[in-house]
Amino acid sequence: MSGALRKVGIVGASGYGGAELLRLCAGHPDLEVVVAQAASSAGVSVAAHTPSLAAAYPGLVYGATDASALDGLDVVFLALPHGRSQHLVPDLVARVGLVVDLAADFRLRDPAAYPAWYGEEHLAPDLLATFAYGLPELHRPALVGATRIAAPGCYPTAALLALAPLLEAGVIAVPGTDGVPALVVDAASGTSGAGRAPKDSLHFATDDEDFVAYGLLDHRHTAEMEQGLGTTVLFTPHLAPMVRGILATCYARPTDPASFTTEDAMQLLSDRYADEPFVVVAESPPSTKAASGSNTAHLSVRVDPRTGWVVVLSAIDNLIKGAAGQAVQCANLALGLPEVTGLPVAGVYP
Amino acid sequence: MSGALRKVGIVGASGYGGAELLRLCAGHPDLEVVVAQAASSAGVSVAAHTPSLAAAYPGLVYGATDASALDGLDVVFLALPHGRSQHLVPDLVARVGLVVDLAADFRLRDPAAYPAWYGEEHLAPDLLATFAYGLPELHRPALVGATRIAAPGCYPTAALLALAPLLEAGVIAVPGTDGVPALVVDAASGTSGAGRAPKDSLHFATDDEDFVAYGLLDHRHTAEMEQGLGTTVLFTPHLAPMVRGILATCYARPTDPASFTTEDAMQLLSDRYADEPFVVVAESPPSTKAASGSNTAHLSVRVDPRTGWVVVLSAIDNLIKGAAGQAVQCANLALGLPEVTGLPVAGVYP
Amino acid sequence: MSGALRKVGIVGASGYGGAELLRLCAGHPDLEVVVAQAASSAGVSVAAHTPSLAAAYPGLVYGATDASALDGLDVVFLALPHGRSQHLVPDLVARVGLVVDLAADFRLRDPAAYPAWYGEEHLAPDLLATFAYGLPELHRPALVGATRIAAPGCYPTAALLALAPLLEAGVIAVPGTDGVPALVVDAASGTSGAGRAPKDSLHFATDDEDFVAYGLLDHRHTAEMEQGLGTTVLFTPHLAPMVRGILATCYARPTDPASFTTEDAMQLLSDRYADEPFVVVAESPPSTKAASGSNTAHLSVRVDPRTGWVVVLSAIDNLIKGAAGQAVQCANLALGLPEVTGLPVAGVYP
Amino acid sequence: MSGALRKVGIVGASGYGGAELLRLCAGHPDLEVVVAQAASSAGVSVAAHTPSLAAAYPGLVYGATDASALDGLDVVFLALPHGRSQHLVPDLVARVGLVVDLAADFRLRDPAAYPAWYGEEHLAPDLLATFAYGLPELHRPALVGATRIAAPGCYPTAALLALAPLLEAGVIAVPGTDGVPALVVDAASGTSGAGRAPKDSLHFATDDEDFVAYGLLDHRHTAEMEQGLGTTVLFTPHLAPMVRGILATCYARPTDPASFTTEDAMQLLSDRYADEPFVVVAESPPSTKAASGSNTAHLSVRVDPRTGWVVVLSAIDNLIKGAAGQAVQCANLALGLPEVTGLPVAGVYP
Repeated sequence: MSGALRKVGIVGASGYGGAELLRLCAGHPDLEVVVAQAASSAGVSVAAHTPSLAAAYPGLVYGATDASALDGLDVVFLALPHGRSQHLVPDLVARVGLVVDLAADFRLRDPAAYPAWYGEEHLAPDLLATFAYGLPELHRPALVGATRIAAPGCYPTAALLALAPLLEAGVIAVPGTDGVPALVVDAASGTSGAGRAPKDSLHFATDDEDFVAYGLLDHRHTAEMEQGLGTTVLFTPHLAPMVRGILATCYARPTDPASFTTEDAMQLLSDRYADEPFVVVAESPPSTKAASGSNTAHLSVRVDPRTGWVVVLSAIDNLIKGAAGQAVQCANLALGLPEVTGLPVAGVYP
Repeated sequence: MSGALRKVGIVGASGYGGAELLRLCAGHPDLEVVVAQAASSAGVSVAAHTPSLAAAYPGLVYGATDASALDGLDVVFLALPHGRSQHLVPDLVARVGLVVDLAADFRLRDPAAYPAWYGEEHLAPDLLATFAYGLPELHRPALVGATRIAAPGCYPTAALLALAPLLEAGVIAVPGTDGVPALVVDAASGTSGAGRAPKDSLHFATDDEDFVAYGLLDHRHTAEMEQGLGTTVLFTPHLAPMVRGILATCYARPTDPASFTTEDAMQLLSDRYADEPFVVVAESPPSTKAASGSNTAHLSVRVDPRTGWVVVLSAIDNLIKGAAGQAVQCANLALGLPEVTGLPVAGVYP
Repeated sequence: MSGALRKVGIVGASGYGGAELLRLCAGHPDLEVVVAQAASSAGVSVAAHTPSLAAAYPGLVYGATDASALDGLDVVFLALPHGRSQHLVPDLVARVGLVVDLAADFRLRDPAAYPAWYGEEHLAPDLLATFAYGLPELHRPALVGATRIAAPGCYPTAALLALAPLLEAGVIAVPGTDGVPALVVDAASGTSGAGRAPKDSLHFATDDEDFVAYGLLDHRHTAEMEQGLGTTVLFTPHLAPMVRGILATCYARPTDPASFTTEDAMQLLSDRYADEPFVVVAESPPSTKAASGSNTAHLSVRVDPRTGWVVVLSAIDNLIKGAAGQAVQCANLALGLPEVTGLPVAGVYP
Repeated sequence: MSGALRKVGIVGASGYGGAELLRLCAGHPDLEVVVAQAASSAGVSVAAHTPSLAAAYPGLVYGATDASALDGLDVVFLALPHGRSQHLVPDLVARVGLVVDLAADFRLRDPAAYPAWYGEEHLAPDLLATFAYGLPELHRPALVGATRIAAPGCYPTAALLALAPLLEAGVIAVPGTDGVPALVVDAASGTSGAGRAPKDSLHFATDDEDFVAYGLLDHRHTAEMEQGLGTTVLFTPHLAPMVRGILATCYARPTDPASFTTEDAMQLLSDRYADEPFVVVAESPPSTKAASGSNTAHLSVRVDPRTGWVVVLSAIDNLIKGAAGQAVQCANLALGLPEVTGLPVAGVYP
């Protein structure tokens, strides 16, 4: 492999993102978790808290959140609820080699976007420009050798992989010009994206056998999609009765409805992602289950001359390609490791 | 109640729609099932085939499909796969008092729509105009005293209840005028809508924990929505990992984006359905689970001045309001019974 | 029907048992809910809290728990967590015609059983003997005209219906005699039995795709089973990833292994329940789904000469036959109404 | 790692076991799949058939079942339905270095057991004794360097890991002596254990929200459990509404009820498995979800002095520790690789 083990710390290690980071690091030949911090579970053993990790981490105990306990680590992953990383990062960056934040705290470039979409002024606006946006398929050069990375949100990962190539190629119309309507991203997610804290809306008997929209018109990931696409987006998320997975069904208008075909669009996506180890472009509609357990995104596209719409579909595992896996992929790039190291390309099926 | 029991026959009684008709009739004070036909299960007892019905129909046995065995019945429900009713109806209509067809065979007025969307010429095009379209909330007058009724499809029921009032009121723009794009109906359904016959795509291990689109651009229910709305629709159905329920998330452009608000749209829907026993209009996003087990549709709407879209959401139980329940509601109207007789208004929750 | 409407109050109306009582009463021709109390949701509208009930109860608002607001009602159902009814009942019984308690507070005859199994002395031990145990199939005579009824627990309902007839008939051995081991009741339940309050163990992402035992050796329903069977029981409950349903798989030793057969056992159960409207005895293993949405219990039995075991299987809907439905069945008996009034015999399938 | 890549063939590669072998081999540093045979899908690309594998095997195409195409391979995994391996193995063993059969064809030592439990005479009874039984935790010495291995069934894996140590230690009574009843193994499985072929009993709408027993008294895995434990077992399998996972809840009588405690039993299991990388013994009841996606078994045990029963619980992922993972674990041992190579110890949670 690639020489010495990198020492890793995980903050927010008791949540779903944290658990997935622990799992992926357990199978990663170059990363070794030496510190796992979890404010709410400090002093608790990982094995007792999350038995799926018991065989991998028989002796690990969550520590309290404490930047000083991370001193000198090669990599620190922050898997905290939104708003917490801002408090920690200013003190942390000088202590460690690489920070990968899985929250939204350092994703948006414009400080004004935080009060607008997250309801609060950002605590460290000066640091925003120092973070690379961690979507390797779209921003790889900025990630090689990076020391501060903001890993994308789960919905934006799915939507950007679907729409960015078509916008870049100019084959879908830019909203706002000549009455072209805003892009529509209609997406469904498993419940794990909403976190591990119990609440009415995440009760088993509430969600099982239910499909429901939420965050109508104002979901925070809208801002991240708009930043990534450079245009207006109407985003409608739904909660599906499953644990993992996001499917984004994206609607746009073709710039040239008369001649742009499904074959053209498929070819464009296939060419764009031909060398990507974690992207599959295929004829059949992508299924969240095909992506589940892997760091792989599945894409397909249709152009409908009858109605004048382009439909792009994108499926990922929200906790892997949409969170922990993408964070490790970014860390691999930042550390100079082969990008696929330790990451599953095959889904756990069925 | 309303005097003598009406004698009922069900054709296609061993499928999910047929089972639901049997269940609803078992609790209906004025309907008595005397014949249940099922080609593939002729000679089999209902109780052995579908144990949920064992206590209600301990002695009933499926008969073979045979119009003559239905002679003189007051009501016959046809719950067959698409294309079969056309064969049966010409011979059947003279034999019985009321025919309610749950398939698509008599839903489309234009005979040319059948080869276009269903791939085959219609066998009895002369009869198309003799069937009333069975969506009581939109077409009640035509159903009172009717003798031939085509019960709507599940997706069209959800979409039409959502969009028709807004189109009628002129508050959403008509597609095709001035570059207004086709309406988008993005919907998710439980698997029961796809029927009881085993296949790869309906295997438990295929669908559980999966969310996937299907029927891209060419789902047959598109034609029914377009007939009902009088305009072009892009319809994208998805399969959700649940048994029952449809949620339609519908996207349209407001005619007056500057002044039309969410409050206006909510008021419009509330007023339109104020006297309907089976429609709930509420602020919170409708959930398929709230509708499950009932004949009730749940609606909500949002207007987004930021992006210029109207989003209308509609949830139903696909087997009740989207099939058997609506068929019974229509039969009640046709027979002169109170419209709600024997139908559940409350959902089975959780 | 049966004359004047009976006025009904429900205490604990915002939980799952309460919601099911509201739903069943909405379809019951002789019961009218006039008061719904819910301590945690007082002042909230039923329609907003539980949208599945919106069409049935558009104007009902939960009141605070208050016995005086129940004065003069014909029936009061108590659907509270264990331990609360004891506080309320002493004051309540003189105010109303019939009390049906769905909790365990008045199920056990022996006051000493409460500290042993529930950890606390009973607050009203004198009243224990005044309550009839509400399992109509085993204790019908005591329920006709009763004024105080303790509706059984969900697991005991399933286990007692399965085992009591075989014990009564003397065909299974009495534990403790000649080294005969305690009966084993191994059961699985959907999560709704654990209530509506959010907690880690009931989080969607915790339970979905999981099967796990709980309450090992000391589940409280053990005491109720032992009281009902008059012998020792080892009870192992499991949580299955579904909302509704209990399947009890019960193991006993035949008294006469040489000659007692599956056919004998099936005949015995069939004869015992031949006239029961809510019990189905069938060859095929009972499925919780066949029972779901109905007040019907499904039973089957096998005798294994190879190993010397009798296996009895019993499936119910835990919220209906195991709670609200059985409570209404008992109320029907107590009020002199036909026992099946307003209760579903057919399951909601699929 | 360990030198040259071993060339691997998989027969029955399009089923669930085959897909899991393909996935595990994709992440295994020393195994390279060069042939994947699937009779029903010959000529189909793996990526199109099972999109979860598309990124890992973009160019692999299923071949027809053909022993000659496997000539010279280092390892061949057979993942066929029961009965097929018998036809293939006699011709195959001379062609390849190692055969690991995942079916039951070579698990039972006694040829007479096949007609008794599987309904047919064995086609190659002479070969039965040449296969090692592939449960490493109980039979490791026989697997080191083996060339023919029969990987255990999923249910027997769970049951044997739970019960064998207690029987070996003499702390649970041997059935048949002094009226001691047969051991009871009451287990629940996800549906993937029943395979990928569509059928009524595996339809999504059949299984979702259902819990049901099957194979009452005569499930074939009984014979394998009895062979492994050397005594009589009553085995009752259930189907749970989930894809992966088996939980076995096992009931036995302690030999010394007066003094054997839960602590004793826990200590015994902990000691027995202290050095096993794929076994976790813990206080909390094992959950199938903790095991899902891993090759790890989770165990716990209780002793009940009140009723005189020992309850041992065991959870595994049926497709990994119960099938493909265990097959790879065995292959690692046979090939002289570190036993854990390429196998996940951490579960995919949630």
